[in-house]
Amino acid sequence: MIHLDCDYMQGAHPEVLQALIDTNLESVPGYGCDHFTKRAKEKIKVACEAPNATVHLLVGGTQTNATVIDGVLAHHEGVLSAESGHINVHESGAIEATGHKVLTLPQYDGKVKAEDVKNYIDNFYADDTYEHMVAPGMLYISNPTEYGTVYTLEELKSLSEVCRDANIPLYMDGARLGYALAVDGYDVTLKDIATLCDIFYIGGTKVGALFGEAVVVTKENLLPHFFPLIKQHGALLAKGRLLGVQFDALFTNDLYKRIGEHAVSLAMKIKNAFQTIGYQPFIDSPTNQQFFHLPNSIVDQIATFATFEYWGPRGEESSTIRMVTSWATTTQEVDELVTKIISL
Amino acid sequence: MIHLDCDYMQGAHPEVLQALIDTNLESVPGYGCDHFTKRAKEKIKVACEAPNATVHLLVGGTQTNATVIDGVLAHHEGVLSAESGHINVHESGAIEATGHKVLTLPQYDGKVKAEDVKNYIDNFYADDTYEHMVAPGMLYISNPTEYGTVYTLEELKSLSEVCRDANIPLYMDGARLGYALAVDGYDVTLKDIATLCDIFYIGGTKVGALFGEAVVVTKENLLPHFFPLIKQHGALLAKGRLLGVQFDALFTNDLYKRIGEHAVSLAMKIKNAFQTIGYQPFIDSPTNQQFFHLPNSIVDQIATFATFEYWGPRGEESSTIRMVTSWATTTQEVDELVTKIISL
Amino acid sequence: MIHLDCDYMQGAHPEVLQALIDTNLESVPGYGCDHFTKRAKEKIKVACEAPNATVHLLVGGTQTNATVIDGVLAHHEGVLSAESGHINVHESGAIEATGHKVLTLPQYDGKVKAEDVKNYIDNFYADDTYEHMVAPGMLYISNPTEYGTVYTLEELKSLSEVCRDANIPLYMDGARLGYALAVDGYDVTLKDIATLCDIFYIGGTKVGALFGEAVVVTKENLLPHFFPLIKQHGALLAKGRLLGVQFDALFTNDLYKRIGEHAVSLAMKIKNAFQTIGYQPFIDSPTNQQFFHLPNSIVDQIATFATFEYWGPRGEESSTIRMVTSWATTTQEVDELVTKIISL
Amino acid sequence: MIHLDCDYMQGAHPEVLQALIDTNLESVPGYGCDHFTKRAKEKIKVACEAPNATVHLLVGGTQTNATVIDGVLAHHEGVLSAESGHINVHESGAIEATGHKVLTLPQYDGKVKAEDVKNYIDNFYADDTYEHMVAPGMLYISNPTEYGTVYTLEELKSLSEVCRDANIPLYMDGARLGYALAVDGYDVTLKDIATLCDIFYIGGTKVGALFGEAVVVTKENLLPHFFPLIKQHGALLAKGRLLGVQFDALFTNDLYKRIGEHAVSLAMKIKNAFQTIGYQPFIDSPTNQQFFHLPNSIVDQIATFATFEYWGPRGEESSTIRMVTSWATTTQEVDELVTKIISL
Repeated sequence: MIHLDCDYMQGAHPEVLQALIDTNLESVPGYGCDHFTKRAKEKIKVACEAPNATVHLLVGGTQTNATVIDGVLAHHEGVLSAESGHINVHESGAIEATGHKVLTLPQYDGKVKAEDVKNYIDNFYADDTYEHMVAPGMLYISNPTEYGTVYTLEELKSLSEVCRDANIPLYMDGARLGYALAVDGYDVTLKDIATLCDIFYIGGTKVGALFGEAVVVTKENLLPHFFPLIKQHGALLAKGRLLGVQFDALFTNDLYKRIGEHAVSLAMKIKNAFQTIGYQPFIDSPTNQQFFHLPNSIVDQIATFATFEYWGPRGEESSTIRMVTSWATTTQEVDELVTKIISL
Repeated sequence: MIHLDCDYMQGAHPEVLQALIDTNLESVPGYGCDHFTKRAKEKIKVACEAPNATVHLLVGGTQTNATVIDGVLAHHEGVLSAESGHINVHESGAIEATGHKVLTLPQYDGKVKAEDVKNYIDNFYADDTYEHMVAPGMLYISNPTEYGTVYTLEELKSLSEVCRDANIPLYMDGARLGYALAVDGYDVTLKDIATLCDIFYIGGTKVGALFGEAVVVTKENLLPHFFPLIKQHGALLAKGRLLGVQFDALFTNDLYKRIGEHAVSLAMKIKNAFQTIGYQPFIDSPTNQQFFHLPNSIVDQIATFATFEYWGPRGEESSTIRMVTSWATTTQEVDELVTKIISL
Repeated sequence: MIHLDCDYMQGAHPEVLQALIDTNLESVPGYGCDHFTKRAKEKIKVACEAPNATVHLLVGGTQTNATVIDGVLAHHEGVLSAESGHINVHESGAIEATGHKVLTLPQYDGKVKAEDVKNYIDNFYADDTYEHMVAPGMLYISNPTEYGTVYTLEELKSLSEVCRDANIPLYMDGARLGYALAVDGYDVTLKDIATLCDIFYIGGTKVGALFGEAVVVTKENLLPHFFPLIKQHGALLAKGRLLGVQFDALFTNDLYKRIGEHAVSLAMKIKNAFQTIGYQPFIDSPTNQQFFHLPNSIVDQIATFATFEYWGPRGEESSTIRMVTSWATTTQEVDELVTKIISL
Repeated sequence: MIHLDCDYMQGAHPEVLQALIDTNLESVPGYGCDHFTKRAKEKIKVACEAPNATVHLLVGGTQTNATVIDGVLAHHEGVLSAESGHINVHESGAIEATGHKVLTLPQYDGKVKAEDVKNYIDNFYADDTYEHMVAPGMLYISNPTEYGTVYTLEELKSLSEVCRDANIPLYMDGARLGYALAVDGYDVTLKDIATLCDIFYIGGTKVGALFGEAVVVTKENLLPHFFPLIKQHGALLAKGRLLGVQFDALFTNDLYKRIGEHAVSLAMKIKNAFQTIGYQPFIDSPTNQQFFHLPNSIVDQIATFATFEYWGPRGEESSTIRMVTSWATTTQEVDELVTKIISL
């Protein structure tokens, strides 16, 4: 049985785990004031080619989004997001719980368009009553999106330009960023992201760590008192070393890159298998999440040798399913899966 | 020049003002513990035929919505609303500032449909991940809506039924309730509202008072500690008497009813005048707000003898305008306006 | 029976009420965009000799405190206050409801000492763990205090200096400011307050208005987006004119000053009467609030011809009572009271 | 060099780490829906002899306190705490950030007294203005306290009785609970705590885990929708298994107990060593935190062979230091330390 429900079904990538084991008994200060954390931050800045960036390590994605967005926005501001954005759908109202509205934009396979952002902002300030409305104070995008799609360099440049013209920060939720960077022929690098976004995070939880998200702030003075805010949000780990050790490992010997490439290449094998037997992907995702709309009879057959998630409720005759690969998915089990799919 | 921009351009209806003058020097306790407030609450309960209801008097609409919704919802819950609902558009994020998401439903001339509410709730609980999402915890409707339309008795019954089946309170924002109740042939009474809604407010600010909104809670134990919450929201008036005196006056000699009927009958005259010269209303509102889509040349002519608001930005060739009547609009000035419209 | 329970037992001072009557039918824009409000703001700036100040008119005191403090503080900051400060005791947690801690200082008859403020700040930053603690982000003082006492010019200068050295704003709650300014021989003027405080409010509710507090911001850019924040806090009055008309009246023909002087002179008569018969004031207040600790037998006799509040619970043998004068207290009734007190 | 700065300077106890290693590759569902978590919860309920309790696993202490307190309190309520309580001092205002005031009580070596709690509540409701004040809605205690002291069974019974009489939940922060339970002759068991408290947490972060706190709710319906609230607070771990595996290990073969006993017995050796050379502890702590007030000359000598924390700023001639033991402190290094102390 191959497990493709999601990319957080196992613990840590062996190299990350080994780093935790190797450092377990070393005594270091708490709350991220340790040398592992310092080293991890340096490596991340190097990987982003952003020597002036500030890096913060937090525990989880919803926590990171809420802490960052709360920190960036003024009271009267909300955050623009695709209506399918994680912050708008699947964070139990964490953003609103910090007092801020999520302002929704149309989504195109999970992505937002620069012109929609521009129109939103233009229309907002053209409205005589805008001071009675929630001002767009930042733009949230996820890359890859919740549907596995990725932004092209051209798209990111347009979004960045619109945001900078409007003087609102561009924030990228990179919970699965490693899988975007590993897309075959992808024209966006960490450096591009650091240049075009004002703040973003490099996800660890879904890309090989036990947990952990690395927030990279490239816009100066964007979050002047972020440390106490992290603490206030309950996002400060006493043993901050754990984040440092893990990100240090992820950014050693290209591990973060290797994990992404491994998972994406296996996802492509699965995608191809379904295409081979005539099923086009439900969403054309180039990353580790794959979506297929299949007759229930096929779904039920697959369920005998693989686990996965239904994407939405099971239909009467056909359903959409999601299959997700990760570092823990093995080539052997995918090859066996492909064989079974092709012979469906 | 007739002023039709909105229904809060003057002070109080003369009878309300007189009541304030008459009682000005009487010494009474603060914070709503006075006999005027007590009497006003009793009159409101009589008017609603709801002897077991609890009545609270607050200052303004946004304040009332935020205090009520914050008081009713649990942390993980949001409030369902038409996407055009005042709480979703024009309250500067006051609801989100209390930590709660506004969950939007399609609007039909400002109204929501019971089946959309039911579907939202059904789909929510059908989603396996619903505990990661914001639960629908109450339904907000405005009556009249932001577009001047009103809910029929049948519609209210359906909404009430859906809400009670789902065990979520139905809350009516009655900022302009007096104008709904005055609609010619309207089949909904205050008693119906008290019976079908779990909580609603009778607007004073836009219906003859200097300010003030009377919250009527008919569902038992819905807001067990509302007094300190009112205070905490900055919604408690030291001279609470002012609210008592005004609502006492509004519910004396049918003043609230008379104000509504006066304004609606004048609005109908204006509506008819435009129809006479061939312009159908932009939205078919039976209340004191009227919307017309007109060629800019006509708009500009009207602007020489009346003030009004543009509804959205002025168009290149034609625009939508809103005209609003109130207690302060006189029959004479409307008759003159009608004459001028007809001769456009 | 003379009513001395508090200074908000009647409506408005007759001159304020007359202004509301005179302007009642004039049509003006809503939300404070009217000419009355503009004129009131100008008069306040003139009275404060602060031409560059920004003035905002809000409805009530708790609302004003919560909106201002929420607007000024960063997320990780709290507000320093005497432990007896209104925001710490009697606002139902309105400040905490906006997410901020009230950091308490010792009180001396309701006042804070500059050295305590300085020590608090110094000790805070001397603590290695200060980033895990709530940073002192502003200083709140009330003048007169909750105990009727006032700050001297020297004290205000010291507080201002400490705050400016620490780069935190000094905020004065002037709910009863008119009564401080009317203290016999008081060496502090509105101009001094405008010079020494970064933000303060001139209370209307307790000094002759139906309601209303005028926030004066003298520090540049302290509250850059205050309008939507006022709206978000439910503190924006649709008929903003009401605040404009009232403050216009209060700052016409020295009304604000006259009200203060009238009430304070009557309070001094009462104080003297008690001293004449051998009871020193419980707190030596020079303003319109007077506190006496008296045998219950005396308290009970007074209760036959005056109403007042117990300050704390009634004791077994003696109790503390508070008597408060206002514009509505007449010289005749105070003279009669004095006669009765002296003959106790 | 022996490291005694705090009890979170290393990773996990080897048995906990081994459990993480052993289970690393097993595929299980996310968000705590895994069998490790289920098993850990069962073991905790058995250890507490509380079969009807509900157990939730969260990541860190501040996060746990904020999520629990926010979940338990109504809007108008605050949480009673010793003024030295962690929530009042060292959580960057996390409680206030959820909208609730921390209501402070005097502390006696970090503990609160039942009579103070009772007096606070009695005085609150005796005050006529109590509805304008923040109601005491729960009692927070830490055990051991921030000063290492512990509550006796008698004290806990009194606190529990006062709370139940007042109908407010008693909540124990057990960040270091393992060290209290290991106190020589301690008359309080986990079962007592489960019986006397309405909710408490068993700390993992400071007692052998990488991180993790187990919330035990014994009062029925105290937190009816806690799962989405955990998510909303950013406290839900995608790989919830990590908490399950760790608490499973801590409650296997009495590991939690062994860790506590190990650390406390070493702390007692250190305490005795200082007493031997004539220094009584600054606070008489029976747990793993020890406090000594020493001449700076002694402090400086100790600093050559041990690390520790200053408790407050270094004094001119003498200072208070804190030494903390944990599972990672070895008997050998403590014996060497003792030898060095005795020969100071």
